[in-house]
Amino acid sequence: MSAGRVDAEGFAAWRSAQQAAVEAALSAWVTPDAPAGLGEAMRYAVLDGGKRLRPLLVLATGEAVAGRPAAAMRAACAVELIHAYSLVHDDMPCMDNDVLRRGKPTVHVRYGEAQALLTGDALQALAFELLVPDDGSIEHAMSAAMCRLLALAAGACGMAGGQAIDLASVGLALDQRALEAMHRQKTGALLQASVLLGASTGSVSEATRVQLARYGACLGLAFQVVDDILDVTADSATLGKTAGKDAASDKPTFVSLMGLAEAQAYADQVLDQAHQALNQSGLAQADTLHALADWVGRRAS
Amino acid sequence: MSAGRVDAEGFAAWRSAQQAAVEAALSAWVTPDAPAGLGEAMRYAVLDGGKRLRPLLVLATGEAVAGRPAAAMRAACAVELIHAYSLVHDDMPCMDNDVLRRGKPTVHVRYGEAQALLTGDALQALAFELLVPDDGSIEHAMSAAMCRLLALAAGACGMAGGQAIDLASVGLALDQRALEAMHRQKTGALLQASVLLGASTGSVSEATRVQLARYGACLGLAFQVVDDILDVTADSATLGKTAGKDAASDKPTFVSLMGLAEAQAYADQVLDQAHQALNQSGLAQADTLHALADWVGRRAS
Repeated sequence: MSAGRVDAEGFAAWRSAQQAAVEAALSAWVTPDAPAGLGEAMRYAVLDGGKRLRPLLVLATGEAVAGRPAAAMRAACAVELIHAYSLVHDDMPCMDNDVLRRGKPTVHVRYGEAQALLTGDALQALAFELLVPDDGSIEHAMSAAMCRLLALAAGACGMAGGQAIDLASVGLALDQRALEAMHRQKTGALLQASVLLGASTGSVSEATRVQLARYGACLGLAFQVVDDILDVTADSATLGKTAGKDAASDKPTFVSLMGLAEAQAYADQVLDQAHQALNQSGLAQADTLHALADWVGRRAS
Repeated sequence: MSAGRVDAEGFAAWRSAQQAAVEAALSAWVTPDAPAGLGEAMRYAVLDGGKRLRPLLVLATGEAVAGRPAAAMRAACAVELIHAYSLVHDDMPCMDNDVLRRGKPTVHVRYGEAQALLTGDALQALAFELLVPDDGSIEHAMSAAMCRLLALAAGACGMAGGQAIDLASVGLALDQRALEAMHRQKTGALLQASVLLGASTGSVSEATRVQLARYGACLGLAFQVVDDILDVTADSATLGKTAGKDAASDKPTFVSLMGLAEAQAYADQVLDQAHQALNQSGLAQADTLHALADWVGRRAS
C-alpha cells in the first residue's frame, strides 16, 4: 500500500544510523556515575536493546518538519527513557512478573526489586531533565511544550492510566472499543507523543499537526494489534521476551477478540489509515514516516 | 537564635492558610477521573495528609522574592507530588514494607502493590505537567528552569540516588560524612529544590540564590537529624507512621552515630547555619523562612 516510497535499503540504512546515534546519545546521558549501582542498573535497562521505535518516530518526524536535530535527539532519548522505565516497572513481580526482556534477565531479576523500582523512578526523572538542558540547545518554549507532551503521555491519562485499565481488565470480556481505549492510553499515547514531539522540534501548521496526531494514533493501534499477533505466533527467542504471556494470563487481546486472520486484516487496515494521514498532512518529506508504518506492520509477517 | 522575628501566632495563621490553599490546589489538580481507580489512589496518596513542609518552603521563598504566586502554587504542588510519589514507592514491600503512613494504611495496603506502583509513577508525571501549564500562567523560561530543578532533585543524583545509597547502607557502619551525603540526596535535594523553586518564581541575584541554596541545604540536613531523633523518641501515633523503624532495620542514623543529646545539639547547630544563610541573603522579607527553620527544629522538642 505504500511500497516504493522509500527503497528498503535506504530505510534500513537510515534506521541503522539513527539507532546507533540514539544508542550513543543514551549512553552519554544515562551515566554510570549515579550512586550505589543505580547508574549501572539504569544503563542496563536502557542500553543495547530494543528497536528504538519511539526515538525513530521522533527523529523521522523531526526530519519531516525540518526541525532542530539537537532537540529531536533529546526528545527521542527522553521518550525512550519513559518507555524503558515503564518496562522495568511492568516486569516487576507485582505487575507482569516477567523474567526475560530483550533476551536478558529483567532488571529486578538482575538487581533486585527495590533497585528496579528506583531505576524506573530515576529514568522517568531523567527523561524530563533531558528536555530542559541548560546549554541553550532547546529554546524554552520548545522545552516547555515537550515537557507537557511527555508528561501527559506518560501520566494518569496516558500510559500509566492505560496500565491501570490493563490491570483491572484481566479476566474481563472487553469488547473491541474498550480494548482500543485501553491501548490508546497504554501504548498509543507514548507512540503518538513521539510523533508530536518530533513535530514540536520544528514549525508545523495546525492542519499538519492534526494529521500527524492521526498518523501517530493509527500507528500506535497497529503496533498493539501486531504485538498481540506476535504473542501467539512468535516464540520467546524471536520476541526477546516471554511469548504466550497474554493468553496465559487471560488478558483480552485483539487476537482473542477477533481471531488471528481478522486481527491481521485489521492491522493492515489501520496502517492504511496511517498512510492516508501522512498523505493528507501536506508534508513534502514523509517517506521515512511511511516506511516506519510499514515496518511496524512487517513485524507481523 | 531566631526568636521574635515573626510571632508564633502570625506564623501559625500563615501556615494554616497556606496549607489549606495547597490542599485545595492539589485537590483540583489531582483529579479523580484517571481510569480504573488510579485517580482515586492518587488522591488517597496526596490529599489530607502531611505538614506540607515542601510546599510551604516554596511558597515562603516565593513570597520572600516577591515571585509570581500562581507559579509558586504550581511549584509547591509539583514538589509535594514528587514527595508523595516517593512515599508511596518507599512504603512498598520491596522497599521499607511499611503499612502505616500519616495514620492511614499505606497505598499498597489499600489498593494493592501494582496500583501503588502506577500511582507513584503517575504522580511523578503529574508533577512535571503542573510546571508546564498551557494557560500562560508560567512563562516558558520559568517553566523550563523549574522542570530542570525538579528533575535533578528527584532523579539519580538527587532523591532516587539517595534512596539507592540508603538501600545499600543497611547494616553498614557509615560515618557521619557518608550519612550526610546520603541524606543530602535522599531528603535534602527535594527540600533544597523547594527553596530554589520558590526563588525561581521571582528574580534574585546570584548571591541571594547561593544563600537560599545554603539555607535549603541546612534545613534539609536538620530535618533529617530531627527525623532520626523522632524515630526513637516519639511513638507511632504521634508520628503517624511506624516508629523505631530505622533502629529495627539496622539502618544507620544520626542518633545511632552520635547519640541522642549530640544529635539534638547538632540539629540546633545546623539550623543556626540556616538562619545565618538567610541573614546573609540580602532578602528583606525572610521572616517566614526563619520561622520555617524554627518549625523544623521544634518537631524534635
